Amino acid sequence: MTISETAAWLGERDKFLILTHRRPDGDTIGCASALAQSLCEQGKTAYVLYNPEITPRYMQFVEEHWAPDGYEPEHIIAVDTASQDMFPKNGDDYKNAVSLCIDHHPSNTFFAQHTCLDGRCASCGEIIYDILIMMYGSISGKCAASLYTALSTDTGCFAYANTTADTLRIASLAVEAGAPHRELNKLLFRTRTRSRVKAEAMINFGLEFHFGGAVAIATITRSMMEETGADEDDMDDIASIPGSVEGVVAGITIRELSGERDCKISVRTSPLVNANEICGRFGGGGHAMAAGATFEATVSEIKEALLDILGDFF
Amino acid sequence: MTISETAAWLGERDKFLILTHRRPDGDTIGCASALAQSLCEQGKTAYVLYNPEITPRYMQFVEEHWAPDGYEPEHIIAVDTASQDMFPKNGDDYKNAVSLCIDHHPSNTFFAQHTCLDGRCASCGEIIYDILIMMYGSISGKCAASLYTALSTDTGCFAYANTTADTLRIASLAVEAGAPHRELNKLLFRTRTRSRVKAEAMINFGLEFHFGGAVAIATITRSMMEETGADEDDMDDIASIPGSVEGVVAGITIRELSGERDCKISVRTSPLVNANEICGRFGGGGHAMAAGATFEATVSEIKEALLDILGDFF
Repeated sequence: MTISETAAWLGERDKFLILTHRRPDGDTIGCASALAQSLCEQGKTAYVLYNPEITPRYMQFVEEHWAPDGYEPEHIIAVDTASQDMFPKNGDDYKNAVSLCIDHHPSNTFFAQHTCLDGRCASCGEIIYDILIMMYGSISGKCAASLYTALSTDTGCFAYANTTADTLRIASLAVEAGAPHRELNKLLFRTRTRSRVKAEAMINFGLEFHFGGAVAIATITRSMMEETGADEDDMDDIASIPGSVEGVVAGITIRELSGERDCKISVRTSPLVNANEICGRFGGGGHAMAAGATFEATVSEIKEALLDILGDFF
Repeated sequence: MTISETAAWLGERDKFLILTHRRPDGDTIGCASALAQSLCEQGKTAYVLYNPEITPRYMQFVEEHWAPDGYEPEHIIAVDTASQDMFPKNGDDYKNAVSLCIDHHPSNTFFAQHTCLDGRCASCGEIIYDILIMMYGSISGKCAASLYTALSTDTGCFAYANTTADTLRIASLAVEAGAPHRELNKLLFRTRTRSRVKAEAMINFGLEFHFGGAVAIATITRSMMEETGADEDDMDDIASIPGSVEGVVAGITIRELSGERDCKISVRTSPLVNANEICGRFGGGGHAMAAGATFEATVSEIKEALLDILGDFF
């Protein structure tokens, strides 16, 4: 469906339940809360299905919209969700029952009765913005805050290569509509705990370079976690560190997990190297430029095996 | 002068020399090269005075616009320059000779014959954009690349609190006009040299906290620069590090410069604390949330003086 068809479809209906995807990010949460917020402001009934994996960082945007027990929706909407495999654990009841999916993933499987898809958008929030403007002509400050969160988190605050002129334009309009972008940027992009600061410093100091600097390996041991006091939240996006160094085409993070010989690797690459292929050799996978694997070996065993495999690429 | 008065003033004249400020950043260089580029495209003669402190990162935007030996300008323009103290070392000849200053620093001393000032703008690039659109109706891709650099570097890729809806709107228009924002973002925000990585790690390890964590102080000594091999280019935006720690409302960077007792402080604050006021007490200045000063004292003398002044705020 087009933007205007989707706007008309929503305008003619009521009693919505909105689904977010598992391991929810700022885009899916921001889209769901913006949509629920605007529909409710216009007198409709719309709730968001509780997502058991919601993180504290995004809770503020959505908690007032969680569906109450016993809510009986007439229409199920999924946002920023490419396939039914991405439903949260408590979303099984809604499989094959989604009326409308609004999404920006080119890999969308068209699992919903109607789909409003634009794969050129950096974030699903851009599509939600266009739909809401088509429906109501404007958005409230609260809705704008959620949409700004959707746009900014999916683009690394407009720094990632997916950012377009439209992303920046809609972000500007969201700020004009009252999104508190200063507070949001501070919260989402410019706040590191002291534990994170220490952990980052240790990781940066410990970076190892191979193949003339084309490969950077970061190691995060359990003792480093203990020494810095860093928790799981502090490790957010830590895998981007080795790949940010000049000349590196494959940035690898090896992290000791809880067990004795229990490690996780994260691989971030430039288009020259296939991260999915590297992780596939370890029984993992992901995308061409971002993949991972977990397996049983010591850090030094993994490093040796990785360098062996990477030898095929360099 | 207003935007339209400045546009008219430029339109009626020719043979310009554009001055950038010392320790040039992306805003002053981006503004100078955008202005020179557009004026030249429209058949005027405009050059940028060579800045001896230019860093490799920004050279590509401006090198083709450096004034040739013996160039005799009729009008001197300063961009992003608050006072004559900020002139580059080779700019002494132009003191009290600037016809037009285009700036966004509220602390501008009105040293020029005419001043086009808008202290609400995050970057001087936004003012240059408005002037060029007023003059010519559009900008070229090359001009847009310089302006995107001005806007994005002065706002930490739109993450800093100075960013406004207008910054995002003009960034969007610059991307539409052909600014290669993907390449620029990668170059400016997502690539760290190995020296930078080491320097960041040392700075992060050495952070000192005061006033219950409300103030963070980073110290960068000459020996740290030598040990890490970091150069001036590697120090770009390093002053944002202490302010990025949770709970910090004033992030201060003290850096030893070349001389024996020659230091620079950079202050980044939340709206609760006025950075311009703090730096003003040291003979410096800038913006309410980002200011600086250079003066003669040792690091420990400066730290003591700063903590004394900061006591007034906490």
